[in-house]
Amino acid sequence: MSEFRIDHQDLEQFVEKVFVEAGLSEEDARVEAEVLVWANLRGIDSHGVLRIPSYLDSIESGAMNIRPNIQVLKETPAVLFVDADRAMGPVVTTDIMNRVIAKAKSVGIGWGLLRKNTHQGAMGYYSEMAAKEGLAGIAIVCSPPNMAPFGARAAGLHNSPIAISVPAGKRPPVTLDMATSVAAGGKLTLAADKGIPLGDDWALDESGNPTTDPEAAKVLVAAGGPKGSGLAFMFQCLTSLMAANPLVAPVLQGAKRLHSQNSVVAAVDVSLFTDVSEYGRNVDTLIDCLKDLPTSEGHSEVLYPGEPELRTDKDRRENGIPLPPGTVQKIRDTASRLKIELPQGL
Amino acid sequence: MSEFRIDHQDLEQFVEKVFVEAGLSEEDARVEAEVLVWANLRGIDSHGVLRIPSYLDSIESGAMNIRPNIQVLKETPAVLFVDADRAMGPVVTTDIMNRVIAKAKSVGIGWGLLRKNTHQGAMGYYSEMAAKEGLAGIAIVCSPPNMAPFGARAAGLHNSPIAISVPAGKRPPVTLDMATSVAAGGKLTLAADKGIPLGDDWALDESGNPTTDPEAAKVLVAAGGPKGSGLAFMFQCLTSLMAANPLVAPVLQGAKRLHSQNSVVAAVDVSLFTDVSEYGRNVDTLIDCLKDLPTSEGHSEVLYPGEPELRTDKDRRENGIPLPPGTVQKIRDTASRLKIELPQGL
Repeated sequence: MSEFRIDHQDLEQFVEKVFVEAGLSEEDARVEAEVLVWANLRGIDSHGVLRIPSYLDSIESGAMNIRPNIQVLKETPAVLFVDADRAMGPVVTTDIMNRVIAKAKSVGIGWGLLRKNTHQGAMGYYSEMAAKEGLAGIAIVCSPPNMAPFGARAAGLHNSPIAISVPAGKRPPVTLDMATSVAAGGKLTLAADKGIPLGDDWALDESGNPTTDPEAAKVLVAAGGPKGSGLAFMFQCLTSLMAANPLVAPVLQGAKRLHSQNSVVAAVDVSLFTDVSEYGRNVDTLIDCLKDLPTSEGHSEVLYPGEPELRTDKDRRENGIPLPPGTVQKIRDTASRLKIELPQGL
Repeated sequence: MSEFRIDHQDLEQFVEKVFVEAGLSEEDARVEAEVLVWANLRGIDSHGVLRIPSYLDSIESGAMNIRPNIQVLKETPAVLFVDADRAMGPVVTTDIMNRVIAKAKSVGIGWGLLRKNTHQGAMGYYSEMAAKEGLAGIAIVCSPPNMAPFGARAAGLHNSPIAISVPAGKRPPVTLDMATSVAAGGKLTLAADKGIPLGDDWALDESGNPTTDPEAAKVLVAAGGPKGSGLAFMFQCLTSLMAANPLVAPVLQGAKRLHSQNSVVAAVDVSLFTDVSEYGRNVDTLIDCLKDLPTSEGHSEVLYPGEPELRTDKDRRENGIPLPPGTVQKIRDTASRLKIELPQGL
């Protein structure tokens, strides 16, 4: 079966229509579409358009709030603390990141804390917003528990991802976007969709035993043992606990799990510290040096953070985004549910 | 042979005398002593008093500058950018962290970037300074390359540690202090001292092959493969490149390696966002929940970040700091070199 590919602009227009039909303003719908399709372009398909049906369900149930009362709880020249009132994640997060970038341009750093957000898509989108404007960007998010702390055989932390982006010189911005688990949750879903086994050290089953069966996998495993586990713990303290909206302990104590997210988005203004062109050249030089290193067994080259995603982005912008049958079906169902036209070729 | 233990206050007084004799002011010598002995108390012996002879050599050679011209290059209400002029690491870093904490108390976050620093000891000391005052603290440092980037078989990044501390409620501050390599460099030195083999995945030899021989180990391995490697890359960008003082590329391009460090110390004021007592209770509750989880094979309990170090601290404050023969000899040599009295019992 030849792989089906869809033009990314066609897909983005379709997603925009979906969210307009779901009740979002045109501007909000455009942001949702851009953030979701950005993930698909990067190959982070688990955070892309396959989320649409669950977002629509959440909008219908009220778990995602398309007319939120977003409140600035605290503001200083450097800090913004916002209650998102369960807004659509990308809509509120892009807005806050823009305001954080403005703060960084004014006082060198901007630090935004968001509470009671909903799914934000791929966090790298937000850190890269800063890098595109010549700043370093940081984005961290915490949700309910899905990962075993080091030493435990049950979920007790979220596998909180962190994304960090910096501007480069001749290259696009460099973005690290990583979960604190060995494998991101999306990789497990993907393995389930493809019917292939998981890596040996990715997941535990219901009883806390290691499993490579994607259907049996219930709990993620921390990357680097105590290191991924420790980072996830501290990210929890910097986001959810700082925002007085704990999402882990209540679930472990038996509360009903309502999906919510708390996150930090931050920006550091490179130009306050050094010349941005020199900075970009230094990032390029560091990359060039890594590429000149001898490779280890099983590797034909040394990749810098986000390089595989940039290659995927280039391919998919040129040749379209490949959609697996399951996702194509989701798009068809969505079009029929909302009575809107399918993107070209679907 | 029964283990020799020295009272931590006696040791601290001795170290203070050492640095006064080496030319530091009494105040600076006190800070050096406190930071070094703090590492020993926590069991981070690789960053403790065994460093004294090399510090004295560096002071004599001028690599460490005891009369530095420390310059504030940029300052905003939230940011401080300082050239340390190769000052003694703990002296300049505690000063900057105090100023960063004051900024955080004023505008919610303080972000300090230090360039051309020298060895700073254990970074957890600085992040914990913030937590002791009810703030979250972050400290990152980058030095010349000692770790193989993921996919490479030679050093191309520093195994940049990150320390994050937060205040707790009934417990002391919680501190994660971790290198981005599988094992910190100090663990290799310790294994060499003890004549025991390294872990399987800790290090590479000169040719880039994995080795468990501490004498043959030349290059550290990144924790979690691309994750530790990616974090180290981005920390490099946030510290050394931001400070326009690259320490990796010049060495890879053949420059002489002069030890220098660049780092970020930051603080976030919990009280701007939430009630500090509630925050502490939430940290405690999160820990309590983790401790209630079923343990995995080989673990009798779930430990939170820094818990092993806090236990060591308690033991060593009560029963003295155990010093291995090599370190005892270094202290004796130092006392004789500077003609000062040995601490009691030595």
